[in-house]
This record gives sequence, structure tokens and C-alpha cells, in this order.
Amino acid sequence: MSFASRWVQPPAHVTEAAGLARGFRAAGVPAGIKPSGGPDMALLVSDEPGTVSAARFTRSGVLAAPVVLCQTRCRLDAIRAVVANSGNANAATGNRGLEDAARMQGAAAMAAGVREDRVAVASTGVIGVPMPMDGVPRGILAARGALAADGDAAFCAAIATTDAFEKRLSLAVALPAGSVRISAQAKGAGMISPGFATLLCFVQTDAVLEPATADLLLGVCVKRSFERISVDGQLSTNDTALLLASGGSGVHVDPESEDELRFGEALDYALRRLALLVLRDGEGAARTGRVHVRGGHEPSVERAARAVANSPLVKAALHGGDPNWGRIVQAVGGALAGTAPLPLDVWVQGVQVCAAGAAKRHDTAALADAVAVEEVEYVVGLPGEGAETEVFFSDLSHGYVTINAEYTT
Amino acid sequence: MSFASRWVQPPAHVTEAAGLARGFRAAGVPAGIKPSGGPDMALLVSDEPGTVSAARFTRSGVLAAPVVLCQTRCRLDAIRAVVANSGNANAATGNRGLEDAARMQGAAAMAAGVREDRVAVASTGVIGVPMPMDGVPRGILAARGALAADGDAAFCAAIATTDAFEKRLSLAVALPAGSVRISAQAKGAGMISPGFATLLCFVQTDAVLEPATADLLLGVCVKRSFERISVDGQLSTNDTALLLASGGSGVHVDPESEDELRFGEALDYALRRLALLVLRDGEGAARTGRVHVRGGHEPSVERAARAVANSPLVKAALHGGDPNWGRIVQAVGGALAGTAPLPLDVWVQGVQVCAAGAAKRHDTAALADAVAVEEVEYVVGLPGEGAETEVFFSDLSHGYVTINAEYTT
Repeated sequence: MSFASRWVQPPAHVTEAAGLARGFRAAGVPAGIKPSGGPDMALLVSDEPGTVSAARFTRSGVLAAPVVLCQTRCRLDAIRAVVANSGNANAATGNRGLEDAARMQGAAAMAAGVREDRVAVASTGVIGVPMPMDGVPRGILAARGALAADGDAAFCAAIATTDAFEKRLSLAVALPAGSVRISAQAKGAGMISPGFATLLCFVQTDAVLEPATADLLLGVCVKRSFERISVDGQLSTNDTALLLASGGSGVHVDPESEDELRFGEALDYALRRLALLVLRDGEGAARTGRVHVRGGHEPSVERAARAVANSPLVKAALHGGDPNWGRIVQAVGGALAGTAPLPLDVWVQGVQVCAAGAAKRHDTAALADAVAVEEVEYVVGLPGEGAETEVFFSDLSHGYVTINAEYTT
Repeated sequence: MSFASRWVQPPAHVTEAAGLARGFRAAGVPAGIKPSGGPDMALLVSDEPGTVSAARFTRSGVLAAPVVLCQTRCRLDAIRAVVANSGNANAATGNRGLEDAARMQGAAAMAAGVREDRVAVASTGVIGVPMPMDGVPRGILAARGALAADGDAAFCAAIATTDAFEKRLSLAVALPAGSVRISAQAKGAGMISPGFATLLCFVQTDAVLEPATADLLLGVCVKRSFERISVDGQLSTNDTALLLASGGSGVHVDPESEDELRFGEALDYALRRLALLVLRDGEGAARTGRVHVRGGHEPSVERAARAVANSPLVKAALHGGDPNWGRIVQAVGGALAGTAPLPLDVWVQGVQVCAAGAAKRHDTAALADAVAVEEVEYVVGLPGEGAETEVFFSDLSHGYVTINAEYTT
């Protein structure tokens, strides 16, 4: 789980740890949903009755059944357990899909010994295929038997689909009020777009949080992490991010305190780190890009950054180690149609290549060397000042085509 | 140049012909712009002083120098000559780019024996690199010497970049008033998105057209052809479509006449045929898709259709011959965020796979066979009635990644 990025550095009060935050147990087992027979049923339980939670879901017009269930049948500020499966998204499955999600919720409630409305359900996998439910009850029962404080690795494996590696972390956070832990597991490699977040992510902490604090912190950190990445510009039907705070540490994180600030920094680090891991896994990805756009008009800055991040031409050039900044200019021009002439400034890896819309002389051989690295940074200046944003993105590789042309995912 | 598509059929009064429409001569020669030394300078001249024209250009916020020159320094309703180069887009090249485009215009005006404002200039190729002008004057002179009534093939070769095959046609059109000809040459394989049209397309006819008729017909036909295709959702900086009517046939196409209707049908066929050829060439493309979306709300129908056509997941499934309609549902949901629940209907190759948002039982093996063809049709029903649109799109292939990762195009 070693991690390094020029863009995401751990705050000084955050160190690596292992296992789940205090008060949590997790497991992951096979339940017959993945044709491979691999682990596909994940269960997470908080043993603390006072557990507080917050959630964010996809904004897609097509919501998967478990997302609908969570939004309509859960106490989202007091979730005690999560049941999640991979291998099937339970999306576009109609009433039967809602019933299947409810069945999973019911079984997990029994397994966790909590009320049904305290159980969140999440699914990921193929869309439009009814859930193979035969092995689900037995799977949840088996997961119950396997629940462990260090079950986060098994949990993570059971939510993975096309993921090439696990996205998981466990952090110790030194707050003025005491030491707390943050653990988190995420999955996601394709169908990733800043929507809110195109993936599943489950975060646990043993800090004592009020529901409003949990909601505020999750909202802010999701905006700065999963909402700022794109593998393929494709908003999913199933995105779910859940923060559970067991309070098991007894350390209170009060609103507007130094503790809240420090805890927020740690959570921000955790989610940005997971978001970058999702990008790096981006179905065949070899390189990660960051586009930073600034200018005077908020919507234009946002549109331009997303257009660059989602351009298959920019992504393919990133993959090929080609400093082809003309495609950056093209993507921005396409996003801001009808605004010509646009006096764009463009920097690639700190080298200005375009000034006020015109090519700027530079050492092309040196620039080609500079982009032959894992993390490539693009900066775009639009007219005006005051607005800025960033989007992280993966490259477009043969692996992406192979995965998405040859497999029904 | 044989052509067949289930979606684009020749009208009964249109037959295949050869060479340029009467009154036109064309040529294509090497001028030292492409590193390969291949043909890269194209010249088209109308010998008829009364030639009438119409033009459409990209809406990108970043306009290439030749596009700016055409829009500001040309009589776009009376173009007599076109000079076009491949190998360099002359985009993001600042004042020097405008001067280079003006130099091309001046040299071509001399070569064609017409006023400078009657010469349209077009460029295509890499963005952000100054035009290598050394060989341009000699190239234009050589093109002048090579001008021929059957020079359309050479012209077409000289505007090609990553094109795998030529997009060219020559049609005889039987109108009530007499027989006329339509010839056309297009290039384009990548950076293709319905913007207006992400390519170069030059159309010649020997019909006698009023400028307003030429403009009306070009506008309508471009909307139904190049505006409805997407290779990669990437709006270019250089799109240019030009219709030149020499009047060389002496056959008048009067406004609101049966002749106008029939001529329009032929032009519509010609441009839709070229648009499909561009898609088929779509940088590595093997299959072509058509998504037809209907419903009650015009902007939603348009957004949904473009989202499907530009989804790398849908495109990869098309490439793999995978009837993975879940990705259609996902793309529409992403395009219409915040509208859940969306009672979508989806048909693939005429088979309904999704009804009111839920999977519909069907013969999956038969459907897998049905999508293993060159042209695959998707129909999406949104709530309501009255609005509909179509977008044609290419698949996402290893070839696309190879071309765009390994070459600076």
C-alpha cells in the first residue's frame, strides 16, 4: 500500500497504519455472482450503536437499485452496516432489482444484528442483468462468520471488478484531542468520471463525529477527490461513497475545531489518494495527467478542464509520451465553442508552449523527455482571473480497448 | 468508390459518374509539408467567372488561421478557387500563421488567375507547429501545371492525413431541368465530432445556383451529415466545408422548384455518404453504429444521442461485437443526470432489450450474432413524443490508440 504522488502528499500528522478503524469489522467472500467464482460479497459492520454516517451517490439519470434503496430506505446519517457485491450492478433491473437489493439489505441486517434501515447496499458490475441471487443469503452468512478487524483486504477484494490492484488505506491521524484512525476501501477502474464519483468507496473512522460534521467533511472531500478524476468521462449508475464514524476511539471531533480541520486534512488526503489510485488503475492506464485551468469565468474553466481530461486525443498522447499540446488547445477550443479568438496560454510540465493563442518556441526534445514520466501536468490559462480548477485523468491505452471490447463489464 | 450502407441509399435520379463537375479542375502535389514527402498541396479552380459558393466552418473557440482568413478575407458566396494543404493545421500559430495563410491565398490567386478574396484556404494536420512554407510557392505552381478535370483523386490524396482510404465521389443527377453533376472530396479520420463537421469537404457542381440556394442547401445537408457523426467527440480547429457551383451545365436550379428538391436530395446523399466514409475510416474503426433517440424534449434527445455516440464504453463494445446495452443505458443516464428514474426503452438491432428502465428478456445468443455486422443500430426511447435525432459513430479500436499514441497528428 505504499503510495507516492507529486500531487497528493500526506499531512505531517498522518501516518500509515493497518486494519480497520476501531469498532469496525469486515469480510469478503464468494457468493456465486462473479462467473469466476472469486470473492464478490463484502460485508462491513460497526459494533458501536452510536455510529454516525454520511453518504454521496451518483447523479446519473439511471440509478441502480441499491442506490435507490439507500436513498429511500436508509437512515443515511446512522448506517451501521454495509453489504456490497461485485459482478453485477443491479442496474436497469426494474422492480425485481429493487426486491433483490431489499433482500440483500434484510439478510445483512440479520447478519449484523441491526435494523434494516441501518444497512447500506451497494453493487457494481454488469448493467442490465438480473442479480444471480441463489448464493447471496449463504454468502452473507459466510461473510458474517468471517468478520474481522483486519478484514479490510478481503472486503476490498470482494468489491473489485476490473480493478488491477486494490485501493485501500489505513491511516493514523494525530489530532489535538487524541489519536484516531481512518480506514477506507474503494473500487473502480472504468466508467469513471467526475460526477460525483464513479465508484464505490467506504470510509471508516473511530473518531466521534456529529452527523452534520460527517456529512460536511465527506461532501467537501468527495468534491476535491472523486469529483476531480476521469478515466473515460462515463458517469456510472452505481456510485456510492459512505463514511462511517464508530466513535470507538472516544476522541471527539467537534465542529469548527482544530480537530475538525486536522481530521478534514487527513480525510482529504485519504480520498485524494484513493482517487489517484483509481486513476492509475484506469483500465490499462500507464500514466496519470493533471490539468489545471485558470481564468476569469468559473463555468468555462470547469468545461475546459473536463474537456481536456476526457479528450481521447489528449489521453492517447499522454499514453504515448507525446507532448502534443495542440490537442490541449483543440480540446479547450471545442469545449468553448463560439468564443474565438481565445488567447490561450498552455504549459506542459512547467514549459510554456503556447502564449496568447500562438505557439511559443521551446526545446521540444527536452519536453519529450519531460513527459516520459508517470505524472504529467498541463496548465491552461484562459482570459481573466479568479477562477481555477483541476481534473486528474488517466491515459487511453490498448488495455482500455481490450478490457472494454473483449469483456462484458 | 463503390459504396453501400443500410442508412444511406442513392435516390433513383442519382447515378455514379467520374471526375469533377463541369467547369472545375483540380490537382494535388507534394510541397514539402508532410515529413513523408507525400502529396500535401491541393488546388481546385473553377473556370467559370460566375461561380457561386457557400461555406461552413468549425465553431471551435480555437480557430485555425485559414478559417479566420476565410471568414474575414473571402467573398464566401463567390469562391473561385481553393488551396488546401495537409500535414499542418496552421492552428495556434498566431500572426505568423495568418500571414502564412495569406501567402497561400496570394499564390493560389495568381495560379488560378482570380482575385485573392475569391480564394478559400484550408489546412489540416498537426496543431501548434508553424507552417513549413519553403516549398509552398513552388508547390502551388506545380499544382497549377497539373490542374485537370479528372484531378479529383490527386486533390483528395493531397488533403489526406491519417485517412486510410479516400473519401471522394462523382455523381450524375437527373433533374427535371436537365442533367447536372456533383463531385466532392473529403478528408477526416480523427478529431471528428458533430460540431458542424470536423473535417475538410469540398463539393463542386456544374448546376446554376443562386448564392442563397447554395448556402441553404449546404447548410441543411451539412446538418444532416457531418453534424451527425462522431469518431471521438473532438471538435477540430480547422473544419471547412465548401460548395462551389460553376454553372457549367447551364441547368438552373431555381429556389423552391422541383429541381431544387431533387438537387437537394442528391447533395444530401453525397454528404451523408462522405460522412459515413469518414466514420468508417475513423482511425482504426471496424464497425459503424447509429443511435436513434426519440422522446418529448429536444435538448435531452440530442444530449442522449451524443453521449451514446461519444461513450468510449459503447464504442469499445461496438468494436468487440458485444451487445452490451447496459452501457447505452449508462451513457444516457450520465447525459441526463438528475432525472432519475428514467423509464428508458432500448432496442439493439431491432430487438427490445430494455423496457421502461428494466431489462427485457431476449435471445442473447441471437443478439450477439445480430451485432457482429458492420453497421449496428441502437434505438433509445425517452419519455414523451415529438423529438428525435440520430448520430452515427465509429467504434473504439486498438488502431485508434495506436494512431493517436504513437504519432503526433
